[in-house]
Amino acid sequence: MKVAVLSGGIGGARFVAGLRDALATGDQDEAQVTVVGNTADDIWLFGLRVCPDLDTVMYTLGGGIDPDRGWGRRDETWHAKEELAAYGVEPAWFGLGDRDLATHLVRTQMLGAGYPLSEITAALCARWDLGVTLIPMTDDRVETHVVIDDAGAPDGRRAVHFQEYWVRLHAPVAHAVVPVGADKASPGPGVLEAIADADVLLVSPSNPVVSVGTILAVPGIADAVRSTGAAVVGVSPIISGSPVRGMADRLLPAIGVDVSAAAVGVHYGARSHGGLIDGWLVDDSDSDALPELTDAGLLARAVPLYLSDRDTSRALAAEAVELAGSIRRNAG
Amino acid sequence: MKVAVLSGGIGGARFVAGLRDALATGDQDEAQVTVVGNTADDIWLFGLRVCPDLDTVMYTLGGGIDPDRGWGRRDETWHAKEELAAYGVEPAWFGLGDRDLATHLVRTQMLGAGYPLSEITAALCARWDLGVTLIPMTDDRVETHVVIDDAGAPDGRRAVHFQEYWVRLHAPVAHAVVPVGADKASPGPGVLEAIADADVLLVSPSNPVVSVGTILAVPGIADAVRSTGAAVVGVSPIISGSPVRGMADRLLPAIGVDVSAAAVGVHYGARSHGGLIDGWLVDDSDSDALPELTDAGLLARAVPLYLSDRDTSRALAAEAVELAGSIRRNAG
Repeated sequence: MKVAVLSGGIGGARFVAGLRDALATGDQDEAQVTVVGNTADDIWLFGLRVCPDLDTVMYTLGGGIDPDRGWGRRDETWHAKEELAAYGVEPAWFGLGDRDLATHLVRTQMLGAGYPLSEITAALCARWDLGVTLIPMTDDRVETHVVIDDAGAPDGRRAVHFQEYWVRLHAPVAHAVVPVGADKASPGPGVLEAIADADVLLVSPSNPVVSVGTILAVPGIADAVRSTGAAVVGVSPIISGSPVRGMADRLLPAIGVDVSAAAVGVHYGARSHGGLIDGWLVDDSDSDALPELTDAGLLARAVPLYLSDRDTSRALAAEAVELAGSIRRNAG
Repeated sequence: MKVAVLSGGIGGARFVAGLRDALATGDQDEAQVTVVGNTADDIWLFGLRVCPDLDTVMYTLGGGIDPDRGWGRRDETWHAKEELAAYGVEPAWFGLGDRDLATHLVRTQMLGAGYPLSEITAALCARWDLGVTLIPMTDDRVETHVVIDDAGAPDGRRAVHFQEYWVRLHAPVAHAVVPVGADKASPGPGVLEAIADADVLLVSPSNPVVSVGTILAVPGIADAVRSTGAAVVGVSPIISGSPVRGMADRLLPAIGVDVSAAAVGVHYGARSHGGLIDGWLVDDSDSDALPELTDAGLLARAVPLYLSDRDTSRALAAEAVELAGSIRRNAG
């Protein structure tokens, strides 16, 4: 069985880890998992190319992640960051650990040597034993910017890099979210093939705007999702009207979507109605949303959605795969 | 009083620290010290520009040095280096600490933005309170390569970067030492002025081949030393036929100079005979070399030369300044 997953950072990484566990413990040992990672969070910092979502997936699947923070390396130190701050070099708000730095050094040096991000990602992942194939959504530069209020700006607003919006400013009201460069980007090598060839395509419970939304903003990817023969199942990143983690509630309004499990499912939309997914998992606590989702053409189920540990991640991923199986049986 | 110093790494840095102490405790509070630092040790590593000698002077004078190693930062960790090795990225033999990395990140980012090394060095030093002005010998790229035996090479020899020769290979027999790029380099901003305007010009007990020799290899610098109105005093890096530290004994033969305090003094040569120095300090244990040095036209003295601590460094620097004073009085 071939499984493809669209994934952002922490939530997606944990979901994919659960998926790997779920497929390894069942009859699905031969399953091949390809993760299409969001790169619109990427940023140049101190002359280094940092890819937060790719690295979070790589570290999480490879066992190098800090399990408490959910990002960055375990047993991390912050001495280079301290010294950069002592030199007065900005930005001081980004958490760049000493171990993590090595990843960015390797990536930046390879970029300078002319390698595309996809080959660099494969080279970095070769060190870690992911058990899945991680590929960037694009080799092109895409960086999400967010338009926020700025009383000092001529028109009262300014655009900041997503990382500044998120990490430094802690997600103030967003008026617009723009994945700069996405319109001219091409899908990374293997992305369209992974989607087209999949038996199951999963949309992880990542941010619908700045993780999944930016992947889908690369021309060709949304069309591939609409036309794949795979069963497409998404997992709600919203539980009981709040994001499972992160600050998705600050960004959904910017694209006109309510902060609810139903609204996000309807936002993706049923493929039978020209949308992007066939099935949608919401949390047990959101079971009253099922009729609305069914009306929208989705095969929706309510299951325990909160990823509190490895077991719950595995159980949720198994539910997603099972729902995809139902969809394929119905289609067959 | 204006004092200029030609300096390499550890030995030069400790000598300059002693000089700063000596000038601060005497009547010389108004002394201005300019250190012309060797940059031929510089190397690109992991995409970063590393300037070992400049940084050793900066960290030593700024109080950030690891006092035991004599290079790199105190309270250093090596996590990025560990991770680079885990990725299989070479070279693994260079000691790049996490705190130290910040210096190279700032430097590399500024180089990428178009700043010359001299301005970058000033910006980095602004954080540290050196009490002296540190300027690179040149803004141009100069990298010392050493020709060594290599049984596998077509002609039985190969050239390696000085850092590889020194750090990785531990100084095997050297057939030639070539400061690549020096012939086309220009003295850095302020270098010729510092030498021309100095009252006292000191040649630190740094390696005569790959530290002082490479500074003097930049066209214009040796001529400035020959013609300055300053009294020029050098300090022997050789005590009793052995280098005070490092492996100068492996490199002096490559330029046809014996490993002795007398031979190095004669190698620099008396300015009255077309050479580069007026005075030369040797260790007490080398006092039998004084007649040969005097015959060569040098004002030579035997003093305690070994820099074991801050007091001995200060005492030696004071001797050098005092000898320069004698030379100036004699000239006057």
